[in-house]
Amino acid sequence: MHRQIGFLTDFGRADEFVGICHGVIARIAPDARVIDITHGVPPQAVRRGASVLARSVPFLPIGITLAVVDPGVGGARHGVAIRTSDGATYVGPDNGLLTLAADTVGVTAARALTNARYHLEPVSRTFHARDIFAPVAAHVAAGVSFEHLGDELDPDALVRLALPQPRVAGGEIAAVVLGVDRFGNLELNIGREHLASARLAQRVQIAGGELVVGATVAEIYADVAPGGLLLHIDSFGAVALAANGASAAELTGLREGDVLTLTS
Amino acid sequence: MHRQIGFLTDFGRADEFVGICHGVIARIAPDARVIDITHGVPPQAVRRGASVLARSVPFLPIGITLAVVDPGVGGARHGVAIRTSDGATYVGPDNGLLTLAADTVGVTAARALTNARYHLEPVSRTFHARDIFAPVAAHVAAGVSFEHLGDELDPDALVRLALPQPRVAGGEIAAVVLGVDRFGNLELNIGREHLASARLAQRVQIAGGELVVGATVAEIYADVAPGGLLLHIDSFGAVALAANGASAAELTGLREGDVLTLTS
Amino acid sequence: MHRQIGFLTDFGRADEFVGICHGVIARIAPDARVIDITHGVPPQAVRRGASVLARSVPFLPIGITLAVVDPGVGGARHGVAIRTSDGATYVGPDNGLLTLAADTVGVTAARALTNARYHLEPVSRTFHARDIFAPVAAHVAAGVSFEHLGDELDPDALVRLALPQPRVAGGEIAAVVLGVDRFGNLELNIGREHLASARLAQRVQIAGGELVVGATVAEIYADVAPGGLLLHIDSFGAVALAANGASAAELTGLREGDVLTLTS
Repeated sequence: MHRQIGFLTDFGRADEFVGICHGVIARIAPDARVIDITHGVPPQAVRRGASVLARSVPFLPIGITLAVVDPGVGGARHGVAIRTSDGATYVGPDNGLLTLAADTVGVTAARALTNARYHLEPVSRTFHARDIFAPVAAHVAAGVSFEHLGDELDPDALVRLALPQPRVAGGEIAAVVLGVDRFGNLELNIGREHLASARLAQRVQIAGGELVVGATVAEIYADVAPGGLLLHIDSFGAVALAANGASAAELTGLREGDVLTLTS
Repeated sequence: MHRQIGFLTDFGRADEFVGICHGVIARIAPDARVIDITHGVPPQAVRRGASVLARSVPFLPIGITLAVVDPGVGGARHGVAIRTSDGATYVGPDNGLLTLAADTVGVTAARALTNARYHLEPVSRTFHARDIFAPVAAHVAAGVSFEHLGDELDPDALVRLALPQPRVAGGEIAAVVLGVDRFGNLELNIGREHLASARLAQRVQIAGGELVVGATVAEIYADVAPGGLLLHIDSFGAVALAANGASAAELTGLREGDVLTLTS
Repeated sequence: MHRQIGFLTDFGRADEFVGICHGVIARIAPDARVIDITHGVPPQAVRRGASVLARSVPFLPIGITLAVVDPGVGGARHGVAIRTSDGATYVGPDNGLLTLAADTVGVTAARALTNARYHLEPVSRTFHARDIFAPVAAHVAAGVSFEHLGDELDPDALVRLALPQPRVAGGEIAAVVLGVDRFGNLELNIGREHLASARLAQRVQIAGGELVVGATVAEIYADVAPGGLLLHIDSFGAVALAANGASAAELTGLREGDVLTLTS
């Protein structure tokens, strides 16, 4: 039994949706502690939410993860609870949002959220975070056992997302911008190993659409001149395009989903 | 005595105002738990704040509600505490922000916040949330009795807001956009009963300004084609104009306060 | 030993950075309570962050302050812990962010954060908030003594910021816009004493760039007509340019860093 609930959505904080979920949890599990991972996932961006969740969960206490990015709400997709081999529980829609994080530890069991006893009645068609997912997470925090949440599911049948893979060939990497953070850092879908296998020089050409820019493969921002671009391993181990004291997103005009080619 | 404080303002989170109120509460009532409903009410939008509060409070634990949207701060309006028949306490300005929520349960007593013992001294002219409302809410959480907060007020004399009412006549509904959420859903000031009494067909014409669009009366997003508009009962029981996998606000250009006509 | 951690950064909430720091703290010090002061400091704006921190800390419980606005992350600047005469502890980069607040009480001791035992390993080059500052703050909350955090530093050797000072001469004040809040209030770098020593009339001319506007020296918003500008002492004791029921920033086009001249 865990009292910590990590909470991620695409709801933003301008509306009351997140606050209402906090309230629902507090009514059911007054001693639970909710840690807001972020609610700034771009609206309905399941794949981005899955990536953010997978990189965040290792830094939270092992406990309950409540995550909702759910363009299919009210439709055919299941609500699920997933148990991993470390004893953690994930609650949310079965659309791939949870499995990227859960699979890094290993899924040991899954349940469809079919037991209405742990939902708010009546369940709305469009706000399952409030009516199903938050109540279920809170009941788990309050001690309800995983097996009571609903019908057993085959862990192998859970939805998994295909993440965009880079292509490395002939000293060239074809990559995608996975996300842009507040500082204008551009996370790419490549890792240290792709940089190595492409044998890029320390000075790299980056081309995408109309754009052609140079960047330096470096360790820290200060390794390049102020305003200069660098490719570095970010704090989560991904290759990112950044700028020293400036926003790489502003300097390049690149956005999430843009396709790039890196060459020497 | 309640330890839960639901907290709603129009302060946003970019500034330190909300954090300071959290600090003030923690100094006075270290064991109180604050649930941020939202701080994203549009600046000084009392009516919008009142609506958001009224729809949120039922999902929070019965306790203390601290709400501040206060264009008249420093002027003649009272600060008030309101008690409802379920034992809950509301604290904020007497400008109608609190009464919409409180009246759904029933106001049993009200006090003007005239007892300076429970304020931060000196009280500023422009930040009563920090200097009066948060301290009073915290003192209530810490056990101060309602009667000590200040002079008794007649509950019937509290400010009530007139919400815009729809007009239904001759198979036509004249409505107003009450709010727009992060997903671009447009909340209208009509309920299921207005739709029924206007006897609209399943396909509805919506006109407002230069705009004429069609929408389908439906249950869930997936009932219409991707990008299509639907009128549905949202998760709070209001009629909303939404779009399947898209933003109804972007598709229509409609904004809060816009006036619409719905016909078959 | 304090369990309260006030937390300020320039990370925003759209990304997962703040949530991850909350998680790191919860793993180390499950009973610590984090009060988010704000995470909306403009990116890398150390001076703005220092001002916001200094005005906020007096309203929080005496405890631990964790603050990170850190353009020099990964470079030569120290990470530090600072103790003040009231027993409070500050943790963050040694770039002036902490000292403005700490000096108002008085620094009694400082340590460089050289003891890796209290860091997350491996420490990244770009996310010291997660890997060093949050863990250290959490360990202090969990009871680790200040002296164990690292090598002793001379409090006088800590970085201090030079804040822009106004010039008052010949009935004229040269001032700077320090910040703009959500409501469009413009905080200036002048206090009540500067207004007095310049002997400005109640009606003031404000010039900056192309802009020349009049404003009234007043106590509250309602002292001027709706939409009118006023100079008033804000709730933190600073002189601010505001507007009654409107945004002074929108009315004047002024932004952070703009230089102004005030005359009668």
